[in-house]
Amino acid sequence: MKGNNGKVFLVGAGPGDPELLTLKAVRALGQTDVVMIDDLVDRRVLEFAPAARVIEVGKRGGCKSTSQDFIERLIVRLASRGKIVARIKGGDPFVFGRGGEEALTLARAGIECEVIPGITAGIGVPAALGIPVTHRGLARGVTFVTAHSRDGTGPDWAAFARVDTTLVIYMGMQHVAEITAALEAAGMPAATPAAVIQNGTMEQQRHVIATLSTLADAARRAALGSPALIVIGKVVGLAHPAQRAAAQRRIA
Amino acid sequence: MKGNNGKVFLVGAGPGDPELLTLKAVRALGQTDVVMIDDLVDRRVLEFAPAARVIEVGKRGGCKSTSQDFIERLIVRLASRGKIVARIKGGDPFVFGRGGEEALTLARAGIECEVIPGITAGIGVPAALGIPVTHRGLARGVTFVTAHSRDGTGPDWAAFARVDTTLVIYMGMQHVAEITAALEAAGMPAATPAAVIQNGTMEQQRHVIATLSTLADAARRAALGSPALIVIGKVVGLAHPAQRAAAQRRIA
Repeated sequence: MKGNNGKVFLVGAGPGDPELLTLKAVRALGQTDVVMIDDLVDRRVLEFAPAARVIEVGKRGGCKSTSQDFIERLIVRLASRGKIVARIKGGDPFVFGRGGEEALTLARAGIECEVIPGITAGIGVPAALGIPVTHRGLARGVTFVTAHSRDGTGPDWAAFARVDTTLVIYMGMQHVAEITAALEAAGMPAATPAAVIQNGTMEQQRHVIATLSTLADAARRAALGSPALIVIGKVVGLAHPAQRAAAQRRIA
Repeated sequence: MKGNNGKVFLVGAGPGDPELLTLKAVRALGQTDVVMIDDLVDRRVLEFAPAARVIEVGKRGGCKSTSQDFIERLIVRLASRGKIVARIKGGDPFVFGRGGEEALTLARAGIECEVIPGITAGIGVPAALGIPVTHRGLARGVTFVTAHSRDGTGPDWAAFARVDTTLVIYMGMQHVAEITAALEAAGMPAATPAAVIQNGTMEQQRHVIATLSTLADAARRAALGSPALIVIGKVVGLAHPAQRAAAQRRIA
């Protein structure tokens, strides 16, 4: 079976700006017969795959979307017919991208799979505001989590409050008030700088900069929604003055 | 003063493989008069800056290296003479890259600075072994830390043991035994899968895959050294079978 198989590239497109694609991703796209692209990925990346058939596989937190099972069956079917397939995801395929599941499914089917990393939103989006997520003296490091895991439970926020890393929460917009309240209850200071950034690195980027205790209200007043990232920690205090001013105007 | 100033790009070159450079980084390099490049960055990236003067600013954990102060003074001097400067760092400039310090120094000097994110080693290097750092059901997320912070103290490993994220430790090769012992003492199971990966994503990549209790010995027997990454968590168990076999041969 292996002889007739194609190949799958699991490609990270980065946080939004199409220029954050890597050279390796561009080279892979140029070789592909089929591109399977997520909703949140900028369509300009398709310019690098001019000969490819494009399949839209809408996946969007909370909304109606193509099921993961269906996507995986489709990738296997295409690759086992000899196609070179690029599966493009926002951010990095192995950071909250379900790329691990897809890689395992392909391995079980005996199909070659190459993972091409992308800039994850948790690093690239704060950087767009001037926020260095691991700044020495302000953070020991950085933690990326989602608000809820597969079993529906939330993280042990008390443990996160103790860890002294910048906390970056993906897909958390439904839970800003709950998360910030839990961290405050766990002993994180109410004045800890915190931000919500929607559509980071894209033209339509919008954000608020507040504190742990005021973040939920600020995000609500600015009418921010998904896709967005929550960033909590002293490093948020290093955001560019211009970005702080823009955030102020937004919630005034 | 502002009128005569040049501009500085703080560019992340990614974990090693020069193809992991972004399109934005390539565009910036093409505009630069001067490139300041770290020791650990592959020299092939200089092909994208054919007209630039190249300044080597050796920075390497533990060894004799150009001081951070000197580097910052040099960047400011060049940019304030109107030069377009690209400061290239391994990985991402804002993840343990001292990019935050450089950005603040430039802001104080009134010099324009643009940060161009790169693939951080903590994501790209495990991916090269097939390890998805946030795989659902195996990890709630991922934490990046260094073994020691500016004040010389180590992290609160007991808190990290409770957090249930994949733990990725940068610049920790001097402390593998100490870190793994502390995590085990804090209640992390001795059988937790763990890896050390040296020169990840480069031709000379070498690694071991072991458990929390056997990692330090395995890394020593395989004679692994810096630059390397330590990855601890159930997700390490998803490394490609071929990578597992290579690791076995290395410590046999």
